Amino acid sequence: MVLRLDSHSADFYMAFDQFIMKDRDGGADISAVVEGVIREIRENGMSALASFTQKFDGFMLTEQNLCVTNDEIDEAEKQCAKRDLEALDFSANRIRNYHVRQLPKDERYTDDQGVTLGWRWNAVDAAGLYAPGGRAAYPSSVLMNAIPAQVAGVKRLALVTPAPNGEMNPLVLAAAKRAGVTEVYRVGGAQAVAALAYGAGPILPVDVIVGPGNAYVAEAKRQVFGKVGIDSIAGPSEILVVADAKNDPDWIAADLLSQAEHDPSSQSILITDDASFAEEVERAVNTQINESSRKEITASAWNDNSAIIIVQSLSDAPAIIDRIAPEHLELAVEDPESMLTKIRHAGAIFLGRYTPEAVGDYVAGPDHVLPTVHSARYASGLSVLDFMKRTSLIGCDATALANIGPAAATLADAEGLPSHAKSVRIRLK
Amino acid sequence: MVLRLDSHSADFYMAFDQFIMKDRDGGADISAVVEGVIREIRENGMSALASFTQKFDGFMLTEQNLCVTNDEIDEAEKQCAKRDLEALDFSANRIRNYHVRQLPKDERYTDDQGVTLGWRWNAVDAAGLYAPGGRAAYPSSVLMNAIPAQVAGVKRLALVTPAPNGEMNPLVLAAAKRAGVTEVYRVGGAQAVAALAYGAGPILPVDVIVGPGNAYVAEAKRQVFGKVGIDSIAGPSEILVVADAKNDPDWIAADLLSQAEHDPSSQSILITDDASFAEEVERAVNTQINESSRKEITASAWNDNSAIIIVQSLSDAPAIIDRIAPEHLELAVEDPESMLTKIRHAGAIFLGRYTPEAVGDYVAGPDHVLPTVHSARYASGLSVLDFMKRTSLIGCDATALANIGPAAATLADAEGLPSHAKSVRIRLK
Repeated sequence: MVLRLDSHSADFYMAFDQFIMKDRDGGADISAVVEGVIREIRENGMSALASFTQKFDGFMLTEQNLCVTNDEIDEAEKQCAKRDLEALDFSANRIRNYHVRQLPKDERYTDDQGVTLGWRWNAVDAAGLYAPGGRAAYPSSVLMNAIPAQVAGVKRLALVTPAPNGEMNPLVLAAAKRAGVTEVYRVGGAQAVAALAYGAGPILPVDVIVGPGNAYVAEAKRQVFGKVGIDSIAGPSEILVVADAKNDPDWIAADLLSQAEHDPSSQSILITDDASFAEEVERAVNTQINESSRKEITASAWNDNSAIIIVQSLSDAPAIIDRIAPEHLELAVEDPESMLTKIRHAGAIFLGRYTPEAVGDYVAGPDHVLPTVHSARYASGLSVLDFMKRTSLIGCDATALANIGPAAATLADAEGLPSHAKSVRIRLK
Repeated sequence: MVLRLDSHSADFYMAFDQFIMKDRDGGADISAVVEGVIREIRENGMSALASFTQKFDGFMLTEQNLCVTNDEIDEAEKQCAKRDLEALDFSANRIRNYHVRQLPKDERYTDDQGVTLGWRWNAVDAAGLYAPGGRAAYPSSVLMNAIPAQVAGVKRLALVTPAPNGEMNPLVLAAAKRAGVTEVYRVGGAQAVAALAYGAGPILPVDVIVGPGNAYVAEAKRQVFGKVGIDSIAGPSEILVVADAKNDPDWIAADLLSQAEHDPSSQSILITDDASFAEEVERAVNTQINESSRKEITASAWNDNSAIIIVQSLSDAPAIIDRIAPEHLELAVEDPESMLTKIRHAGAIFLGRYTPEAVGDYVAGPDHVLPTVHSARYASGLSVLDFMKRTSLIGCDATALANIGPAAATLADAEGLPSHAKSVRIRLK
């Protein structure tokens, strides 16, 4: 049974904190395992990659079948249904149109002391994209990871994705083709992340690794961070729906289950100000779970990790939302724009009764790679900026240096760094 | 003796790669040590903090002396020289003026399908700032870490900095006051990072931890990443100077040593197209090392980690620079703007003969927290964005959903996610 919390009960905050702090990932310490995997890849490259792949994906990986060829990709595309490819094109275009607006501007100016200042943005040379392929292969994730890199102007775009028994999802390959991916590798897990960071066999090292994966992939990204850049570390997915009683309970139930069906560790939360509406939603959820082809996963996410929170007034919702900092937040209320102004922490916000979260997963345009497990407190969804870096620019002539140099030398003296001071003063004579 | 490499010798690229790949940090595996420190802080909070501080900083830390009071800060300020405080104010203003330009813009628009799209930026609630205090205490680092957070609009700004024998540098405290720091803690090392991430004694958890520190601090930041956000992981500092023979060798020598004097693991590299100029610079470097009050540190960084690279033509420099991706790059050449366009990877670029790197450390305005050890390939200097996060916004009405929903449902079907599809289709009837 799903947890029910009532915001006006005396122990609400204790129960609520216990609920949101629960470790849905199982909390097993996998850092040593992942360390071992990375060490193996660094030491033995291709042969280590092959032996992990044999073990986890059940096929014999070679330098030949590791790289998916363009012919294989074209062949795969022919196997896809036309309507799926059309939907993929529709989605890719919308994602591209949104992300193009994120391209940052360079800056250059001369200030009142005559100093030339500014910055310049550049794309990284090479990006590695991880697309999960375990419980489900997600072509949409390929688009959402690769298109921002393509928009940023990244030249080398290497996609890794696990291929159980060597099989690839044709629509994943079709998505890679549409998103400007330049290399596709039939390999997944922590070993794939290590190969992208350090190189292995034909895989050359990249500069940035992005994309969601399981707990091993997430830990591998954490461990290679510093050698390469990474996006956020992904945890299990989640949705928070704020809904008043004017919603159709069936709609809200479907929204809650759209995240619950991802994984047993997913989380769905309903906040409402109407206890009988909550009951109707709960009934609808249980009916829909029973009808789902993913019944077991969905039921476990709903019964073990989810909650219905009853508030006295919807004006209590923003404080609760900010403590959760949800990955996905639906505001299925009369005036979502007004509630929006009171909320600080969320990965993506879906406004109004006609914006189910699933449109954000596929076709709205914003990235569906979003900060999970409270990390929207500090992190953002994947963007073009994750594939770019900024260089600061500073230029002085003799006059400008005469204006700002003395203060620099004074501070260098105060910090006990004589060569810093000398490098300025020697030019002031 | 400093390494000399000649770009037209046969083995240049081998020798060069060996040089740039050398691990200047010593490469000791400290991850287990740091894991232990973090575990201790999580389990024993304040008492663990006290015992690490006794061990490393040599004084008895209590809940009382952990927090530096406003009275202590005002008292410290009175001990500072007036010219130092003036230089600090000058620097703080210039840093603020530069960083204000980095404030990102929100976006909101309705697209051709009637979908409301956009994003909104928010500051994080609380940031933790690490300022090193070991070999030297750096008030400038306090400004460079805190001001971007202040400009971003962060409400809680907690500064941690080690206090050997309990003593704080007065100018560090004066800098904290100017930079909007709201809490100062007399504690450093991996234990301080753990306290900021998880809380300990009076220190409440923060959302983001930034700032450079030693290898233990860097590893602690890596390990708490995910619980909190972090900036790049800092390694030893470095400078690359490209100089033609028209420079004063003494000036260039001083620039090279301005980074060498930070730490024995620092690195200075000169690229020049004139071998006899290189010799003059080398002589000047050795003379200046002998005159320096930081002779030992400077000599070891220069002799053990640095290099002079002779190129046939300065047009060969950009390719070499990009392989190094230096933290600091000086272009002391006739036409720095033209060379600038050919370079992709550097943390900060200093243009022309009158822009010693040290102005960037103190007063130019851009942040001096910059990507080290080749990480400028993918990372940027600290900025206002490190203290903000972006929320995606999506809004559909019935018509917009009718336009974009069917493709979403098609892709959900293709990915085998029936509740995703249902949450869209249920609204299309």
